[in-house]
Amino acid sequence: MTSIPDTETFPHSTGLALKTAEAHSEEKDLVLWGAWFCPFVQRVWIALEEKSIPYRYHEVNPYKKEESFLRVNPLGLVPAIEIKQEATLWESLVLLEYLEDAYPHASNPNAQPLLPEDAIGRAKARIWVDHISKKVIPAFYTFLQAQEKKEQDEGREKLLQGLEKLVKAMAPSTEGPYFFGSQFTTVDIALVPWVLRFATVMKKYRNFELPTEGGENNVWSRFKTWEDAAVNRQSVKNTSSDDEKYFHVYKRYAENTTQSEVAKATRAGKALP
Amino acid sequence: MTSIPDTETFPHSTGLALKTAEAHSEEKDLVLWGAWFCPFVQRVWIALEEKSIPYRYHEVNPYKKEESFLRVNPLGLVPAIEIKQEATLWESLVLLEYLEDAYPHASNPNAQPLLPEDAIGRAKARIWVDHISKKVIPAFYTFLQAQEKKEQDEGREKLLQGLEKLVKAMAPSTEGPYFFGSQFTTVDIALVPWVLRFATVMKKYRNFELPTEGGENNVWSRFKTWEDAAVNRQSVKNTSSDDEKYFHVYKRYAENTTQSEVAKATRAGKALP
Ligand SMILES: N[C@@H](CCC(=O)N[C@@H](CS)C(=O)NCC(=O)O)C(=O)O
Ligand SMILES: N[C@@H](CCC(=O)N[C@@H](CS)C(=O)NCC(=O)O)C(=O)O
Repeated sequence: MTSIPDTETFPHSTGLALKTAEAHSEEKDLVLWGAWFCPFVQRVWIALEEKSIPYRYHEVNPYKKEESFLRVNPLGLVPAIEIKQEATLWESLVLLEYLEDAYPHASNPNAQPLLPEDAIGRAKARIWVDHISKKVIPAFYTFLQAQEKKEQDEGREKLLQGLEKLVKAMAPSTEGPYFFGSQFTTVDIALVPWVLRFATVMKKYRNFELPTEGGENNVWSRFKTWEDAAVNRQSVKNTSSDDEKYFHVYKRYAENTTQSEVAKATRAGKALP
Repeated sequence: MTSIPDTETFPHSTGLALKTAEAHSEEKDLVLWGAWFCPFVQRVWIALEEKSIPYRYHEVNPYKKEESFLRVNPLGLVPAIEIKQEATLWESLVLLEYLEDAYPHASNPNAQPLLPEDAIGRAKARIWVDHISKKVIPAFYTFLQAQEKKEQDEGREKLLQGLEKLVKAMAPSTEGPYFFGSQFTTVDIALVPWVLRFATVMKKYRNFELPTEGGENNVWSRFKTWEDAAVNRQSVKNTSSDDEKYFHVYKRYAENTTQSEVAKATRAGKALP
């Protein structure tokens, strides 16, 4: 195996993400502890951008469990946020909820609401975010880390099934491209970082292509509409690094040599951290 | 093996839970589809009681995947709620959030708020609910279903570690018995149904006893303060059935013969549904 150790991962973002990081390098009350390659971080980064929240982006290599980092998140995972003089918080999905609570649209019209306004809509968003967490993302890693063709096929199948179920719950595309139609929400944010890695990492290492047609109710064409809108959303582009850099990081997943917590859990068939 | 099939589980609640079910048997806009023995259901049931929400309790055996039930939750799991003429929702933790959103304290002083008011407090609640879901509850089932002493010991150890971490994050007992001190919140609700099963099911089948002293910072005495308050909370007592009935259901877990989704996932070492 020729893979580099996780602690030697390329040290900072590139491309548009680098520009965004540089534009957010000044001290602010809210600090995002992130790693440029991490899809869980990208969720929170997208939300900060969408909501026009003042923040500082702080790059950290989460595989080096430095004291200063563990003081922010005792679990040693990114994303984490530091709210100066007040608290440190972690878990990407908790952070999305936190940003909704702390920066309500009502008190700042620039703060895009990332959940529907009505209680039922909010519950639906959370149901589908839960589905993404439990079904789609684990399948992504199973598929990518599997070394045997049979297990790869099973992983691909599970990934497609998880996506298909999600797409069937989407609003019709006549109402808009996103899960809820025109509103871009936590459901879209929870998924898009992994979908960004379909056409790059998954294509390269697993020859992955989404079905272009077929599926009940034209699900794949609905998915394509979603994907086109989601990956081209400005906040998504602005938090993405150059493709080639992702290839380096994900090679370790494709060869199943990384010692990340996510990879170890996947290898053991266990729940993700 | 002499265990009964899951579909023959005792059909309805007993004791105080039966009284509560009977008091909530009239048609209402919100219907809780529940199973008396299910700790995930009890979370939602406790919240409905705490918030004085008008609801109908509808008992269902989730192992029989009846059409009418699958129409309410396609995943075939309880709890689920039906909001007449509007929607059906599921996932216990999503439902707790839904009840907070749909029945805000601000518009009804009888509706106890089950999350702190401030955004940081809410985020902390969600972080610890996540910890309970990922660390404490899976360990509970691992410990209970393990047949070999060595695996039982590992399960017990993980359960105690998960609890210890949670307790260390609690407010000091001088501020009140609950996680946040005086306010009873989703953190307490997320955990208490399983703790109810410590002194009954876990004691009987695994000879489980919590350490009474020791642990850093007297964690076990802090836990005892929490436990005494939580298990004696009226909403918790009012949603609990007779001990003996739980023994019947959990015998199938202790013998590792149940085919519930939770048990199958535990057996396979996988994430819980
Ligand atoms: N459940 C966490 C997962 C975060 C996570 O796994 N982050 C990875 C980077 S993508 C990490 O920090 N890994 C450090 C390690 O595995 O040691 C979340 O949603 O925030
Ligand atoms: N993640 C779900 C889990 C609910 C669950 O596992 N419920 C069990 C009863 S305690 C169930 O409905 N089991 C049916 C089955 O396993 O087929 C939640 O939090 O609501």
